[in-house]
Amino acid sequence: MLSVAIIGGSGYVGGELTRLIYLHPEVKLKATYSRSHAGKYIHSVHPNLRGILEMTFTGDDPVELASSSDITFLCLPHGQSSKIVPDIARSNTRIIDLGADFRLKEQSAYTKWYGFQHPAPDLLNEFVYGLPELHRKEIATTRKVAVPGCMATSAILSLAPIIKEGLDDGRIIVDAKVGSSGSGGKPSLATHFSERYNVVRIYKPTGHRHTAEIIQELSMLQKRKLEVSMSAHSVNMVRGIETTSHVLTYSLPSVKDVWKIYRTFYSGSTFVRIVRDLHGVNKYPDPKFTIGSNFVDVGFDVDPEAKRVVVIGALDNLVKGAAGNAVQCMNIMLGLDESEGLNSPPIHPV
Amino acid sequence: MLSVAIIGGSGYVGGELTRLIYLHPEVKLKATYSRSHAGKYIHSVHPNLRGILEMTFTGDDPVELASSSDITFLCLPHGQSSKIVPDIARSNTRIIDLGADFRLKEQSAYTKWYGFQHPAPDLLNEFVYGLPELHRKEIATTRKVAVPGCMATSAILSLAPIIKEGLDDGRIIVDAKVGSSGSGGKPSLATHFSERYNVVRIYKPTGHRHTAEIIQELSMLQKRKLEVSMSAHSVNMVRGIETTSHVLTYSLPSVKDVWKIYRTFYSGSTFVRIVRDLHGVNKYPDPKFTIGSNFVDVGFDVDPEAKRVVVIGALDNLVKGAAGNAVQCMNIMLGLDESEGLNSPPIHPV
Amino acid sequence: MLSVAIIGGSGYVGGELTRLIYLHPEVKLKATYSRSHAGKYIHSVHPNLRGILEMTFTGDDPVELASSSDITFLCLPHGQSSKIVPDIARSNTRIIDLGADFRLKEQSAYTKWYGFQHPAPDLLNEFVYGLPELHRKEIATTRKVAVPGCMATSAILSLAPIIKEGLDDGRIIVDAKVGSSGSGGKPSLATHFSERYNVVRIYKPTGHRHTAEIIQELSMLQKRKLEVSMSAHSVNMVRGIETTSHVLTYSLPSVKDVWKIYRTFYSGSTFVRIVRDLHGVNKYPDPKFTIGSNFVDVGFDVDPEAKRVVVIGALDNLVKGAAGNAVQCMNIMLGLDESEGLNSPPIHPV
Amino acid sequence: MLSVAIIGGSGYVGGELTRLIYLHPEVKLKATYSRSHAGKYIHSVHPNLRGILEMTFTGDDPVELASSSDITFLCLPHGQSSKIVPDIARSNTRIIDLGADFRLKEQSAYTKWYGFQHPAPDLLNEFVYGLPELHRKEIATTRKVAVPGCMATSAILSLAPIIKEGLDDGRIIVDAKVGSSGSGGKPSLATHFSERYNVVRIYKPTGHRHTAEIIQELSMLQKRKLEVSMSAHSVNMVRGIETTSHVLTYSLPSVKDVWKIYRTFYSGSTFVRIVRDLHGVNKYPDPKFTIGSNFVDVGFDVDPEAKRVVVIGALDNLVKGAAGNAVQCMNIMLGLDESEGLNSPPIHPV
Repeated sequence: MLSVAIIGGSGYVGGELTRLIYLHPEVKLKATYSRSHAGKYIHSVHPNLRGILEMTFTGDDPVELASSSDITFLCLPHGQSSKIVPDIARSNTRIIDLGADFRLKEQSAYTKWYGFQHPAPDLLNEFVYGLPELHRKEIATTRKVAVPGCMATSAILSLAPIIKEGLDDGRIIVDAKVGSSGSGGKPSLATHFSERYNVVRIYKPTGHRHTAEIIQELSMLQKRKLEVSMSAHSVNMVRGIETTSHVLTYSLPSVKDVWKIYRTFYSGSTFVRIVRDLHGVNKYPDPKFTIGSNFVDVGFDVDPEAKRVVVIGALDNLVKGAAGNAVQCMNIMLGLDESEGLNSPPIHPV
Repeated sequence: MLSVAIIGGSGYVGGELTRLIYLHPEVKLKATYSRSHAGKYIHSVHPNLRGILEMTFTGDDPVELASSSDITFLCLPHGQSSKIVPDIARSNTRIIDLGADFRLKEQSAYTKWYGFQHPAPDLLNEFVYGLPELHRKEIATTRKVAVPGCMATSAILSLAPIIKEGLDDGRIIVDAKVGSSGSGGKPSLATHFSERYNVVRIYKPTGHRHTAEIIQELSMLQKRKLEVSMSAHSVNMVRGIETTSHVLTYSLPSVKDVWKIYRTFYSGSTFVRIVRDLHGVNKYPDPKFTIGSNFVDVGFDVDPEAKRVVVIGALDNLVKGAAGNAVQCMNIMLGLDESEGLNSPPIHPV
Repeated sequence: MLSVAIIGGSGYVGGELTRLIYLHPEVKLKATYSRSHAGKYIHSVHPNLRGILEMTFTGDDPVELASSSDITFLCLPHGQSSKIVPDIARSNTRIIDLGADFRLKEQSAYTKWYGFQHPAPDLLNEFVYGLPELHRKEIATTRKVAVPGCMATSAILSLAPIIKEGLDDGRIIVDAKVGSSGSGGKPSLATHFSERYNVVRIYKPTGHRHTAEIIQELSMLQKRKLEVSMSAHSVNMVRGIETTSHVLTYSLPSVKDVWKIYRTFYSGSTFVRIVRDLHGVNKYPDPKFTIGSNFVDVGFDVDPEAKRVVVIGALDNLVKGAAGNAVQCMNIMLGLDESEGLNSPPIHPV
Repeated sequence: MLSVAIIGGSGYVGGELTRLIYLHPEVKLKATYSRSHAGKYIHSVHPNLRGILEMTFTGDDPVELASSSDITFLCLPHGQSSKIVPDIARSNTRIIDLGADFRLKEQSAYTKWYGFQHPAPDLLNEFVYGLPELHRKEIATTRKVAVPGCMATSAILSLAPIIKEGLDDGRIIVDAKVGSSGSGGKPSLATHFSERYNVVRIYKPTGHRHTAEIIQELSMLQKRKLEVSMSAHSVNMVRGIETTSHVLTYSLPSVKDVWKIYRTFYSGSTFVRIVRDLHGVNKYPDPKFTIGSNFVDVGFDVDPEAKRVVVIGALDNLVKGAAGNAVQCMNIMLGLDESEGLNSPPIHPV
């Protein structure tokens, strides 16, 4: 079995990745690095893993750990992975970075959206944007993947088919709703239960950093710069992301046309489900039906009143929005079936 | 004390209205009509009122009850109040309708948005749209008020200042998030706890009926027909509505300008709080901070990347979104202080 | 109007007290002391009070503030009020302490349950245990009241009638379920939303400090030392406490007998509702129906299988469990109607 | 692969079982019977299974379906399986009944606790009570298993070690907290979101039917009739059960002794985790850490104040409390590894 190193395993993404690697038949967790929790049992931080994994976090040199592993996953805060990736990249390990440091192609985009001077700009073009549904072939032949942001994944995958088709008038508005796990495991007043419960908190009306990725990827599909704006809201749940994208159009397509566009675009993409029912309670994508799985659900509606196509995406932010998508990329890089180790259906109801 | 009749008191709006009337120093509940619960104690349906109100619902003729009361509140499903209002209107009672039957001015709008042939079109223009912040003077001199829809209230009041100022390019998108109490007290699969918990369910991507009111009122501010579209989502809470409205502009105003526009517009409007802090967790409106109160919080942000003004509204759908706003209208109709009986601060945290 | 000082106003109890004092017709908030938030607007900490109270927290000497006020409420962490009460007690202000420092009569009980050497043991007997339903007369004639713990209030008030009647065999087990607001406003891993959501966390299987009060008060009713034990659980809500007390008996009373015992015991107690319906969804007390109000609901069932009486208590921990009960005590101390300023019905649904 | 029939697959237990059978490497779902949903897609009822299982529910004769399958799971309401099991039992299929009809050994217990005249009393002793941790050997050699009730599983497994040791004085009180999925998928006022959210609702203070199983199994461990009583509460979550059992003792054991008793008792039981940490947030069992998995967590504390041992159990009611436990029984019946197909770690946080 191939060996896996996780660098930064004490956050929620690291925990979810540990769970998925444990379930994977072809790879094996060698060690998980955490500076802050070195020496502690993994299950002391991820209590679900009690009785499953009797490992402790290692505090040993992460570059060395990575360099001696077949696959290295990096789950670090913004700005951290770009510091060590140049060193790790000297070895032969495959690098899958779940942070933001290598998602954008332009150094200037980091200055603009992240306000930081990227320390390894020459590596930006070596990384493939790890969205298999858009970049399957490039992922298959690279050793460096940057896993997309959770909100970006939902927005891009739900929008891609109609953007590629050019149905928009160039202005797209993404209204995102996210669960608390997206903001990590570190306590603060913003995540204090009594303050966080029952909110609909627009924490980023403008300027959310994932916007940069969405613009990059959607513009690539049209080969022109699109104007995408996003507003992000915290809602009362732990897991899940829903994005409602409002696409203004010049000429309104029929529902049937849009169906066809989505079906064609996602033919062969195992983890994309097109959800648009005429009856029942669950006519459109809802993160509730993706929890614990690698599915991203996409759907749409056409609004004749306002020359608008409404596009909906929903996923589990820790799986398809992060760790699951990373494993999917790994599978492709290793030449395995894309869905290896990822076949757990969503948990419902929860 | 003036006498109050509630017609249709067994729903959540009826219950909230009963609570507010109980707290009001100048009026007194005479009787509450409910066809389905006639004879039962009010607290058997509204368990919060146990020990407070030892009344039963009456099943006697609602027209007679209304006609012999000083003020009549109607809390009936769509299409019901228009059947009895013509009869009630023969008496001298003040009519405050919390349903949708008299909100729209055009009969054709009912055909289009509600799919029903309005049975009393001549009464449409006798009703004032009960949004005191826009129609205070007309409310003061009418005996017939149509209380706005809960989502419409949040959308209209948050948008009104910049729409009046003409800062938009004519296309406005409202993305609404609502709690479960907005869909009433009748069980169904859609509201079954295990199915409803943790959802971000876009139940009306297009065509939501409140859109009609929003278009009517905002267009009135500009004296031209605006194109407003709305998508409505159920989120994981019971009370509260948040609307995020995305206003596309030709030329971007400064934050300072928008502040001034809002401050001027809402000068003297007790129940509107402008929320836009630079620091802290709660920088923008959030329904969490309005629960149990008649406040509507409005706020905004300016997005230079996309020539977009983001406008946020938040309220308690059962208070400012329905019963509280109705009492506010009643106060104005009666020449009382607008906030009489409505001074309870929001409950926090809850 | 009489002047009120709040010492320690930045916590949830302090916030709720501020809300209730604002609503009270006979007293007026003079100032609120907070060491940590001195100079900040009250609404920056209690966002519900925005637009209502344009006051800032004061950092001036709390003893001086208290001494120059008619009524002083202390909302401080354990061990803090006993440090300043001796100084405050030299003035003529009425002292209402919402902390634990003066609830117990025996100095030794503080050593045992709180592990601290009480610095002012001679004051312990000057304080009246502020449960109006048990000590109304003593409260009316004292100037020093210790407001009970939130869980203790639910447990004691639900148990008192049958304990006074001597229906128990001397062993009582209290199983308590509490919302997050009971553990205050300070962020920690235990209250981090992603970790706190959906829990049934038994955080104190044994040794909860409120047990001491419960033993003290129930034993007083029987004039012998009872053996009461408690287990406390955090559940997935912000407000509310439910206690289920399992009372083992020698001989089982009839339901009719127990009804009579409760009715007699609570005759004249405005804020106690006896809840025991034969039909409907809400047959027994549930905190959901007390939110925002000063009610404590009590109920019971008789278990013939196991010679057990099950006794249920439910309340809003911040109102009847703290701030509301404190105001009720103040009303009695001032010779006002017990329910002055406390007549807001619970909010439902929420 | 062996063939599996599910009779009654449209409820939450049926859905969860379908998910687990899908994941199982050694068996294959042949068909799922549902009278009410015959002809509909399984994913129309269990939306998580969309894109995974393109099967429809069958309405064909369930006895025939069962008789031609290697294993038959029955997920029917109380009183239904006892009507068809006699017919099914004529075939060679293995029967695993997830309902209550064959859990109790005594016909009279059905009359007493379920108020129904059992139609097949002679079959009661042919069924093994499907709790592998207590009856592993009997399950291995039977073809008929009755899967325990969800609350009973938590109570029995957490209590068994100390009851077997005889540490109790004969009176045990179980205080249970359950999520909404335990009450099934059928809407009612009790499960209407606005009414069910935020509750701590004691829906069965006495007389809960699972008490009968608990008494039966615990009494068997001591070979004398124990007096166990239970109170059951609905709390604000979808999945999960926590039971806190208060065991009164004559002589108090040490924590060390109890540790040893649990370790010994559960040596070799893969799915039982003993949780009792001295530090951290999660010192005791909490259903939150079992979601989606077949684990049951057990823990305890010793209360010297009250001669009481507090025993805690926690599990996912749909997995170890129902479908997962059923699959575990199936594995044992088939001679497979007990954990085959059940190795998914819990999902956290959720």
